Amino acid sequence: MRIAKHVERLEGYTPGEQPKSKDVVKLNTNENPYPPSPKCAKVMRSFDPDALRRYPDPCCGALAAAIARRHGVASSRVFIGNGSDEILSLCARAFVDDGEAIGSLDPSYSLYKTLAAIRNVPWRGSAADGRPDPGADVSLFLWTNPNAPTGAFAEPAAIADFARGFPGVVLVDEAYADFARGDCMALAAAPENRNTIVMRTFSKSYSLAGLRVGYCVGPEDLVAALYKIKDSYNVDAVAQAVALAAFEDEAYHRETVAKVVEAREALVARLRGRGWDAPASESNFVFARPPAGADAASLFAALRGRGVFVRYFPGPKTGDRLRITVGTPEQNAAFLAAADAAIAAGIGG
Amino acid sequence: MRIAKHVERLEGYTPGEQPKSKDVVKLNTNENPYPPSPKCAKVMRSFDPDALRRYPDPCCGALAAAIARRHGVASSRVFIGNGSDEILSLCARAFVDDGEAIGSLDPSYSLYKTLAAIRNVPWRGSAADGRPDPGADVSLFLWTNPNAPTGAFAEPAAIADFARGFPGVVLVDEAYADFARGDCMALAAAPENRNTIVMRTFSKSYSLAGLRVGYCVGPEDLVAALYKIKDSYNVDAVAQAVALAAFEDEAYHRETVAKVVEAREALVARLRGRGWDAPASESNFVFARPPAGADAASLFAALRGRGVFVRYFPGPKTGDRLRITVGTPEQNAAFLAAADAAIAAGIGG
Repeated sequence: MRIAKHVERLEGYTPGEQPKSKDVVKLNTNENPYPPSPKCAKVMRSFDPDALRRYPDPCCGALAAAIARRHGVASSRVFIGNGSDEILSLCARAFVDDGEAIGSLDPSYSLYKTLAAIRNVPWRGSAADGRPDPGADVSLFLWTNPNAPTGAFAEPAAIADFARGFPGVVLVDEAYADFARGDCMALAAAPENRNTIVMRTFSKSYSLAGLRVGYCVGPEDLVAALYKIKDSYNVDAVAQAVALAAFEDEAYHRETVAKVVEAREALVARLRGRGWDAPASESNFVFARPPAGADAASLFAALRGRGVFVRYFPGPKTGDRLRITVGTPEQNAAFLAAADAAIAAGIGG
Repeated sequence: MRIAKHVERLEGYTPGEQPKSKDVVKLNTNENPYPPSPKCAKVMRSFDPDALRRYPDPCCGALAAAIARRHGVASSRVFIGNGSDEILSLCARAFVDDGEAIGSLDPSYSLYKTLAAIRNVPWRGSAADGRPDPGADVSLFLWTNPNAPTGAFAEPAAIADFARGFPGVVLVDEAYADFARGDCMALAAAPENRNTIVMRTFSKSYSLAGLRVGYCVGPEDLVAALYKIKDSYNVDAVAQAVALAAFEDEAYHRETVAKVVEAREALVARLRGRGWDAPASESNFVFARPPAGADAASLFAALRGRGVFVRYFPGPKTGDRLRITVGTPEQNAAFLAAADAAIAAGIGG
């Protein structure tokens, strides 16, 4: 045997396109249109390059302490990963035995299905509206809230209620929670919490997608299980220092989030004004159906031809819509103009 | 089920201690005593922090191209990881099916045993001298060359011969190859190579342990399997850029390696002059047995008490020696002075 059978079979996850050109309107991978806190630049500039010869803190001590303080938990309940992608991958190994399965909402973050295939266990989707009904074999349920690609928000009380009745581990992926009206961190931090992990990322609201830092808060034994199976030094020294600077500049963070939320509301209103079906979003993207007569897949391609990148997910539950990351007001206007023009030209044009 | 049974059982790997104080002589985790290339500092200082809001290149395109060029292979035969630790972890999942096992030399890098436990498969050790004889169920053999913690070098022809007869995947971990008289990269790059991967790291000879970048070269289908199961964005944007700068400054790299090799030879000679058993090393560390009467474990503790950190691996094959990372001539002298004093004082003193 050279390649494990289930890996041989795998298709692999296709991340959103990262175009090399700077001349595009990039609204396809939910990045923040605003730069990170100026304090990040300061930390980058003053970082001693000679210190790079040493291994980083394997436990991200300073950053973990700051996160623990903010959320009112002990550091032993905080885990920091090389992006929240690494945390997801670790959870798929730590909390799923052979013969069990991974569940999530459907539709949701499309990586989850790939994660289950990599772990060589089945994936079970639950309708995204209403209480999830994962199969009896699901031992890890990934609940994205606000959900992607829909932007819909589930009430924390509903998630808490589900978690109470669920025998396995519930991971609430709060990648977009800073743009929403609420979150589940109190649930994760509660002393009586036995099975719920809440995960956040520095890639979205903190504008640090380039540095790969995510974290989660959960019961101490679950966090300890993640520590056991992680790579020894999973988060690099520069990423630890810069993420800490971003995390501690709360005023800048609030301000950036407020700008994105304002731009999102304006974008939703304009889309609706043009006949799109644009449901309310609590994230930094909008999952909208083009006006009657305009096919989403064709519009996606036409926008790409005009230098505007959004995301299209084929399939019965998602294929009639585009996921548009909220950009600056200027980027959103450029998207709208390109979409208007493509639709007016019969899309192909 | 909350925690997978094999994870519940795991002890977890204990990485070498990373003391917070700068006032110690740190010769315990094989870091380079010299800083990275000055070109790294330049890249750090000129890196545009605003670019961090975007995801990094998921395939490390520029760095992979430079590595491919240097080793004379197509980019599709190069894989870059978040440190070579991530590559090891991916190989344990991509090239090992349930019911198979992971093999390595014994003694060797102590992480391998933990890796097998994390993958929930047996680990099989082969005597480190002579041709390895892994069990019939071993589908991934990890051959560290030069070996750790011994520093011993195996001839590339012997590794090639072993690989030809091995039905699974051979990963040659060349973390220390830049300090040795040869390497297996030609074996990895050969067009007829079907099962051999050669792995390098930026943590040792390039002095970038803090940034987490490793790479490997192998057959295209094996590299493709690693791509399928990796996290989408596994290496951050700063790490990619800084590693490229280090890689391209070949003159600085050669000079640093030469200084370490010279200091290593001097350290071996001085240890031998003091009655230590210090075998020839082709790495950036020396695995030496203290003179008769001085117990390695006690000396390790006594050195630590004197602010000198080296590494001690208990066990029948390793417990009579210390692994001393080669430092600057000044650090090596400080280590020798502390060891002399501890031994003279009857170690406890």
